[in-house]
Amino acid sequence: MSIVLVHIDGEPVEPWIAEFTRQAPEIEARPLDRIEDPAAVDVVVAWKLPQGLYGTFPNLRLIQSMAAGVDHVLADTSRPAQVPIARVVDPWMARAMSHHVILQILRWHRQLDLFEADRAENRWRCGVTFHPETVRVGVLGLGHLGQAVARALQGLGFAAAGWSRSPKALEGLETFHGTEGLAALAERSTALVCLLPLTTETEGILNAGLFAHLPEGSFLVNVARGGHLVEDDLFAALDSGRLSAAALDVMAAEPLPSDHPAWRDPRIFLTPHIASEINLATATTVFVDNIRRLRRGEALTGLVDPARGY
Amino acid sequence: MSIVLVHIDGEPVEPWIAEFTRQAPEIEARPLDRIEDPAAVDVVVAWKLPQGLYGTFPNLRLIQSMAAGVDHVLADTSRPAQVPIARVVDPWMARAMSHHVILQILRWHRQLDLFEADRAENRWRCGVTFHPETVRVGVLGLGHLGQAVARALQGLGFAAAGWSRSPKALEGLETFHGTEGLAALAERSTALVCLLPLTTETEGILNAGLFAHLPEGSFLVNVARGGHLVEDDLFAALDSGRLSAAALDVMAAEPLPSDHPAWRDPRIFLTPHIASEINLATATTVFVDNIRRLRRGEALTGLVDPARGY
Repeated sequence: MSIVLVHIDGEPVEPWIAEFTRQAPEIEARPLDRIEDPAAVDVVVAWKLPQGLYGTFPNLRLIQSMAAGVDHVLADTSRPAQVPIARVVDPWMARAMSHHVILQILRWHRQLDLFEADRAENRWRCGVTFHPETVRVGVLGLGHLGQAVARALQGLGFAAAGWSRSPKALEGLETFHGTEGLAALAERSTALVCLLPLTTETEGILNAGLFAHLPEGSFLVNVARGGHLVEDDLFAALDSGRLSAAALDVMAAEPLPSDHPAWRDPRIFLTPHIASEINLATATTVFVDNIRRLRRGEALTGLVDPARGY
Repeated sequence: MSIVLVHIDGEPVEPWIAEFTRQAPEIEARPLDRIEDPAAVDVVVAWKLPQGLYGTFPNLRLIQSMAAGVDHVLADTSRPAQVPIARVVDPWMARAMSHHVILQILRWHRQLDLFEADRAENRWRCGVTFHPETVRVGVLGLGHLGQAVARALQGLGFAAAGWSRSPKALEGLETFHGTEGLAALAERSTALVCLLPLTTETEGILNAGLFAHLPEGSFLVNVARGGHLVEDDLFAALDSGRLSAAALDVMAAEPLPSDHPAWRDPRIFLTPHIASEINLATATTVFVDNIRRLRRGEALTGLVDPARGY
């Protein structure tokens, strides 16, 4: 019998097991504590499997990440190099991500926090005009999520452009690439949105050197991974006025330690990694499809290149 | 000489005069205190001209509202009945309105205020999934602004539908009309957005009778006029849970009196009539175009039917 191990760090796995049973009765999905024979596991569907476990399944044929990122998989050095890794490519999650980014961009652009502060003083600040034509969003990362976010921003009339490591030609979207392209993207942007995979090349990419290319008073949105951001550089950029605010949904340490200054800094729009939570029903459909493909010997979807990291 | 009187209540008019001069040097635009001969005024471009003045211009040929609504014009009983009235139809303002409504809908849907409250307690509430498929927006009013907002919401994947007094068939948008249609729209909606003109028929339309047709925990957005809302019914609906929150950009009295409960009620997302402020450059282009049409004897744009009130 082939078993699918399902594991999600920090949350009950039972609803996922039940959803697998509902959508695909032929798939035997089990939680970690019900794996009697590691040799029976041919697929792992996981968010942050405990370190060292990937190496204990001799017949593993697919690692399916429960997230758009696979950094949590690549971090496990016990992982057999030949086992394919897939990320989640789910339009439902792309829409959620677009909603989060649009909410943060509009909150900044339309000064929601200023009007909330006014309320405490009974101040009716009317006659304010917002100029969306001054908002130019640069999206870092042009994968499934980055493209969806850039298109959604364009749909609202915002001038969006994108950046990726290697050149990408996308209909109707200005794109930049490589190191020089990154500076050029920052120079034309008043808001940067990070949707990059976390790799050795992108770690710390949101740093003082990049911020220096942004116009004064720009806005930063990080919805990728905390490791992309150099936090000291962020606070320096906020203090100097290079950045007027930053929306952070991901942090280097999560849950955020209680003494972290981001908790109390009104220039930081802090959210607890909720930009694009995985959706039980739609993600299970993606997982089931890939598992059936594997077992039928068909091409898998969402495969990543471990050497690139995405 | 034909003179265009430009007046905007509560704000300096000089920038508007300067913009007229910049865009159309042939148009003699003047503020109220520089009108020597009322008989020379053929056009009034105004937001809330002082009561009784419309009747003092014997050669008036066009009243151009500086807003999408003309209720402030119709309220002046001195207005000569035969003078045509035009509202502003400006895609720039429609985009601003869409941005405001989307910000408020997303703020409610993605529970921004809950996460802000969490910050005060250092609470990292992760693992929250938002389900946009449960958000069904009913747009009251299918004029230029209502249609733009409904389309923008559809573009973000929200199920939008619209209501108007008389039947309207719009490609790809579910529409309702009349008294029975209003109840039906409310029954299928979890968020109501009011973009109606304020007329004797729509005054107080946001009342307990309408709220009773909404599902429990619905959301109300009023971006039209304070007169649409029965405030006592709003607070009762918030207290009963019929409404979970309301975004109010317009109030019966503006600026909002300092003792009004909306200032301090966290269930009310209060903004000071800034949803869609008029834009100097783009609105002046609309005004200039209409004045030139008038003087060339061509058809005017944005005309309203005073009998309907919009």
